[in-house]
Amino acid sequence: MTAAVDVIAAKRDGRSLDDDAITWMLRAYDRGEVADEQMSALLMAVFFNGLSARELRTWTATMIDSGERLDLGGLTRPTVDKHSTGGVGDKISLILAPLVAACGAAVPQLSGRGLGHTGGTLDKLETIPGWRATLTNAEVRDQLESVGAVICAAGAGLAPIDRKLYALRDVTGTVESIPLIASSIMSKKIAEGTGALVLDVKVGRGAFIKDHDRALELAATMVALGRDHGLATVAQLTNMDAPLGQTIGNAIEVAESIEVLRGGGPSDVRALTLALARTMLELTGLDVDPAERLDDGSAYEVYRAMIAAQGGDPDAALETSGLVSVVVAPRAGVVQRVDALDVGVAAWRLGAGRARKEDPVSAGAGVRCLVVAGDEVEVGQPLFELYADDEVHLERGRTTICDAVIIGDEPLDAAPLLFERIG
Amino acid sequence: MTAAVDVIAAKRDGRSLDDDAITWMLRAYDRGEVADEQMSALLMAVFFNGLSARELRTWTATMIDSGERLDLGGLTRPTVDKHSTGGVGDKISLILAPLVAACGAAVPQLSGRGLGHTGGTLDKLETIPGWRATLTNAEVRDQLESVGAVICAAGAGLAPIDRKLYALRDVTGTVESIPLIASSIMSKKIAEGTGALVLDVKVGRGAFIKDHDRALELAATMVALGRDHGLATVAQLTNMDAPLGQTIGNAIEVAESIEVLRGGGPSDVRALTLALARTMLELTGLDVDPAERLDDGSAYEVYRAMIAAQGGDPDAALETSGLVSVVVAPRAGVVQRVDALDVGVAAWRLGAGRARKEDPVSAGAGVRCLVVAGDEVEVGQPLFELYADDEVHLERGRTTICDAVIIGDEPLDAAPLLFERIG
Repeated sequence: MTAAVDVIAAKRDGRSLDDDAITWMLRAYDRGEVADEQMSALLMAVFFNGLSARELRTWTATMIDSGERLDLGGLTRPTVDKHSTGGVGDKISLILAPLVAACGAAVPQLSGRGLGHTGGTLDKLETIPGWRATLTNAEVRDQLESVGAVICAAGAGLAPIDRKLYALRDVTGTVESIPLIASSIMSKKIAEGTGALVLDVKVGRGAFIKDHDRALELAATMVALGRDHGLATVAQLTNMDAPLGQTIGNAIEVAESIEVLRGGGPSDVRALTLALARTMLELTGLDVDPAERLDDGSAYEVYRAMIAAQGGDPDAALETSGLVSVVVAPRAGVVQRVDALDVGVAAWRLGAGRARKEDPVSAGAGVRCLVVAGDEVEVGQPLFELYADDEVHLERGRTTICDAVIIGDEPLDAAPLLFERIG
Repeated sequence: MTAAVDVIAAKRDGRSLDDDAITWMLRAYDRGEVADEQMSALLMAVFFNGLSARELRTWTATMIDSGERLDLGGLTRPTVDKHSTGGVGDKISLILAPLVAACGAAVPQLSGRGLGHTGGTLDKLETIPGWRATLTNAEVRDQLESVGAVICAAGAGLAPIDRKLYALRDVTGTVESIPLIASSIMSKKIAEGTGALVLDVKVGRGAFIKDHDRALELAATMVALGRDHGLATVAQLTNMDAPLGQTIGNAIEVAESIEVLRGGGPSDVRALTLALARTMLELTGLDVDPAERLDDGSAYEVYRAMIAAQGGDPDAALETSGLVSVVVAPRAGVVQRVDALDVGVAAWRLGAGRARKEDPVSAGAGVRCLVVAGDEVEVGQPLFELYADDEVHLERGRTTICDAVIIGDEPLDAAPLLFERIG
């Protein structure tokens, strides 16, 4: 008989866990036969001693087997998905999914909600009146065939043990473990049934992972897991020192996404979307230039169809909150940095984000950044517009954002948007 | 507000925990406000990153403060206690407490029960008809004054959080951590109120700690903790490769202890008892030769008074179980080793020990070793006598003990009994 304490002690002492031990432990935990305090001890031992590629493969496979697996076979289009590890102003999915669909692929974007300073794609789309995040598996399939793009809530049936493990990790200091992050992301993406996957691994001040080497390690770990499970996977490290685009919030980010879908919008959002689209298309073998599909309006048409298919009104007004506050430059000079973390936390405190997963979010709260690093500014020139539903939130946001911009005297080169590609 | 997850993450990342964080975490756990899964994650982080001397001092002080502290001040005798980390055939307390009392000190031996392959002093004494392990604090004090020696169960009021922490460590693979072992032992000994303490830190095949350097580290950690709390503490590393004395069990060990108290018995038991007694007497400033008090019968008189004071009959027969099996040498040669772990596990399986703390133990089950390392034996010569209450237990013990003796051809020097002294 396997005993939980023996599995914990083995990992603690750096010994290898055999496949049966991993499978037994996770299944017994799922059934409630291994206690939370035993699983958290194992997770902490994994934090310190890691999981080998073989252990992680088995761990992830067991997570996938804890639930259902979507069958996306038999569609007329090749499927490809994108997952981002979470950034500030990261509205890329809203543009990318319809864009890649407009190029001929099917994009099954099963997403989560935001937590902390990084926003969630579903929270943004839910500011569109009538739009619903929850679809049945049959609806997902039908929409992929008819429209080519779906952004919806990942069903509770995909790798359900991840929900239980994540809740435990969240309260036991075991979130920040590369194999545990990798298995959490990849179990859901593999269960989702996509044929190919591009991972946008954010690194920098506003990212979950601030260290470049750790981001590379996470990327390589996820790419290997995808390969082990027969899923063509590429990871792209991208810069998250500064917010993406000018807007951070919910409705305000949807509005900016529409600008990009119509061929305009901030250049960094357009550039990153196109780079990720090209990688996704490469994995599906579709030889199409996505820039054309942005500029000819076809991506925007798919976006409208995607929103409408889920009950949303693509022409609905996307309004910011009624209270506005402008933050101005305290001195003249050159913007040395716009700190993604500070801006993200400010948007969160303005009401755009949530601290706990049960909390509601404000549709209209958020931040508009009026400068980027390298801009010359005059004293008193507006740097940010802040939007909130009430004075309390507005004041919280103002307090947080005051250190987000550093103004100096040196001219500054633009920072790169893309780093390494893995896989 | 302190959050448990922040304390866990700090220790996980190797940052120092401030005193308030340690005290808050342990007290909140004691009150049930920090969950088991959070405490086990912290304990695993402590396993990996340790506790600094200052952290451990605060951790231990908080454990002590979780309960009552005995006041042994005002006795006419100086108090001194001994604690052993647990060995096979370790009956030293039964002889040492009355011996040191016979030399003029008061010995408050508040003890635990055995678990696994190492026996417990209380289990041994409970084979004496009428003897009771549970005394009130007032009874402990009175007996220390009148008799000079008490061996009884440590009350639930001493460092009660240790009970909760130990139960958690037991199921989460966090027992084998030096600061956690040290705080568990020392919190109870400091709360017990003894004026001085000698630690018998066992090292070797039959000990909880098999590695010499780790035993040294544990010894130094405990000595420093004693000093930090104003308790004069010395640790003596002793050899636990082979069982102590000839007997392993309960009643059978009491009988052997009485032999030593009457001036006879195995030489290793006598030698170790005298060495520890001399260290204890040194700490109390009493200039008495304990060997004289063994040989003149005065230690035995204190033993009889100590047993009688707790309701026991010092003249009661101490009988082994009715079923006996003799294990003989499979070949002639020189005994290369008698393995303490194998013998301890055999005694446990014969019925002398328990796997869970609720289990009963057999009074009469056990092992008598008829040879020691270095002895020349003939083929067929008896090596062990095994005692059990039924055939099932007898067979289990036989199966376990068959590898306990290794017979070779080389002559062998006697192994040292004592290693380093710390403090």
